[in-house]
Amino acid sequence: MTDSRPKTLLAMGADTAARLITGPVRDRLLAVADIDPGLIATDFADPAVAPALAEAEVLLTSWWCPPITADVLTAAPRLRAIVHAAGSVKHHVTEACWERGLLVSSAAAANAEPVAEYTLAAILFAGKRVLDSARLYRERQDRPDLDAMFPGFGNYRRTVGVVGASRIGRRVIELLRPFALDVLVADPYLNEDLGVAHVGFDELFERSDVVTVHAPDLPETRHLVSAARLASMRDGATLINTARGALVDQDALIAELTSGRLYAVLDVTDPDPLPPGSPLYDLPNVLLTPHVAGSLGGELARIADLAVDEVARYARGLPFAHGVAAEELATSA
Amino acid sequence: MTDSRPKTLLAMGADTAARLITGPVRDRLLAVADIDPGLIATDFADPAVAPALAEAEVLLTSWWCPPITADVLTAAPRLRAIVHAAGSVKHHVTEACWERGLLVSSAAAANAEPVAEYTLAAILFAGKRVLDSARLYRERQDRPDLDAMFPGFGNYRRTVGVVGASRIGRRVIELLRPFALDVLVADPYLNEDLGVAHVGFDELFERSDVVTVHAPDLPETRHLVSAARLASMRDGATLINTARGALVDQDALIAELTSGRLYAVLDVTDPDPLPPGSPLYDLPNVLLTPHVAGSLGGELARIADLAVDEVARYARGLPFAHGVAAEELATSA
Repeated sequence: MTDSRPKTLLAMGADTAARLITGPVRDRLLAVADIDPGLIATDFADPAVAPALAEAEVLLTSWWCPPITADVLTAAPRLRAIVHAAGSVKHHVTEACWERGLLVSSAAAANAEPVAEYTLAAILFAGKRVLDSARLYRERQDRPDLDAMFPGFGNYRRTVGVVGASRIGRRVIELLRPFALDVLVADPYLNEDLGVAHVGFDELFERSDVVTVHAPDLPETRHLVSAARLASMRDGATLINTARGALVDQDALIAELTSGRLYAVLDVTDPDPLPPGSPLYDLPNVLLTPHVAGSLGGELARIADLAVDEVARYARGLPFAHGVAAEELATSA
Repeated sequence: MTDSRPKTLLAMGADTAARLITGPVRDRLLAVADIDPGLIATDFADPAVAPALAEAEVLLTSWWCPPITADVLTAAPRLRAIVHAAGSVKHHVTEACWERGLLVSSAAAANAEPVAEYTLAAILFAGKRVLDSARLYRERQDRPDLDAMFPGFGNYRRTVGVVGASRIGRRVIELLRPFALDVLVADPYLNEDLGVAHVGFDELFERSDVVTVHAPDLPETRHLVSAARLASMRDGATLINTARGALVDQDALIAELTSGRLYAVLDVTDPDPLPPGSPLYDLPNVLLTPHVAGSLGGELARIADLAVDEVARYARGLPFAHGVAAEELATSA
């Protein structure tokens, strides 16, 4: 590590690079890194990439970066660090990278933020029955008697259950602090005090007015939101899923939603997107969005800003603010 | 003021009392006040109320409390304090009360909270185009290309304009702090630093991606959101109104919404509720709710809890935590 600009190579999809490395972010990157912003490694075997790969000290990666295999590392003898301008590093940071002792940083925190914000808004709207009241007002063209229809509704002393103390789950818990809501968290791997009640999954589903899912998609989390857990939810409770469709027993959820007993806010489904004709498209008690909770549009700049900050820290000899360790990856997304 | 339970009389609508003074709140009230919770002054001239009024040291008021006139005060020689379990005290705390030097407390802070929460959720959903993306996904039964439709959308470095540094406006500003949003406030009476840029109304409308209205309904604020200011808003910007319909030039707003240039989240309208057939019922770029942002359902308990806390403070000889001074009322709701 030196105090000069490290030789850096972009490795990601060409479209991703066009949307990510642009405007003020691009200017900042050029100031902190020795980089050709027009050269993008979409394929590490491409001979046009070889000279830059041979010199690169930092790989700045993002979505569609090919796996950084042992062969790639052989062709990159000076590589010291991978700065990932996206969420999970699982798909491109291979075992060989960890064995080589590369420093790895991820913008997962920046990527988590919009999901947590979407979730917060969904929780507040759900407790208040905002979308229901809007639908009823439109249908009747007269004010509905919400107190009669939804006794005791509103966001005061209601219980919100956070499934998964993942990065997003933790950020949701943090964003809920200003509100008079009782927050529960369930996560078998959690062994810190997050300042909210840590309960088991079953208790969380039974007690919560809103359940929000922030667990990783792993074989053991498939249908974590099972038919039995859905059945145990309180009448009128809301399920929010911004994680992955496979975490929910979707047939059981559709049955509960069709009966009108539960509400749902679904940004992900199984499959995703849904096939035409799925009942989820038409149920009035579902807010169904097309996988928008993550970073989109201007939110890509948040990720790029974080990644450029990390390159700058590396250039100044500072440790990454968002470093990733190999051990964390087994239980996270 | 003594350390014993002050003689207290309820003065509000009978329905209001039934919804407000119930459950744990009622038990707490009985513990701190010498009160007959079955006696509710809905009309101060009612002879059945006279004995309690003659003894009362505290009036615990709420919605539909009749005006506390000079005549009422004559019949209440021991009255020292009015604790209002609702928002504005303007309609029942008369000039005579201030002249008599009564202590006045209001639960306006508790009443502001759900409005600020609704607004926060509306801001986050607006920036993210959540309701639009849900509508498009349903209509097409396929994922829309949101990046192409809404270039640069999302909640990162967008500008939110808060019209009115009212209690609710300030709470909205506070709730926006965790987010990477640039916040502006416009209020001609503001002379404190709220930690956000203080600008004029015209600049606020021109610069903001979302404008949210939290000004009082006064003759001089009628159509504060004028046709010219609406016209100056950025393409694709969102207007949120949870205050009062009269603050907005509604015909001009309907024209902007019909053209599809702007979005709106409207919890109040002019008139309120809207007459059947209003175009606002059908516009796809409007989230129209039937005056639900304020305290409803279980949120009444937040107000009642605050009011009971104030009676308890009075009983212990402490100043009110939410005292109201006569001077504040000229420029507030």
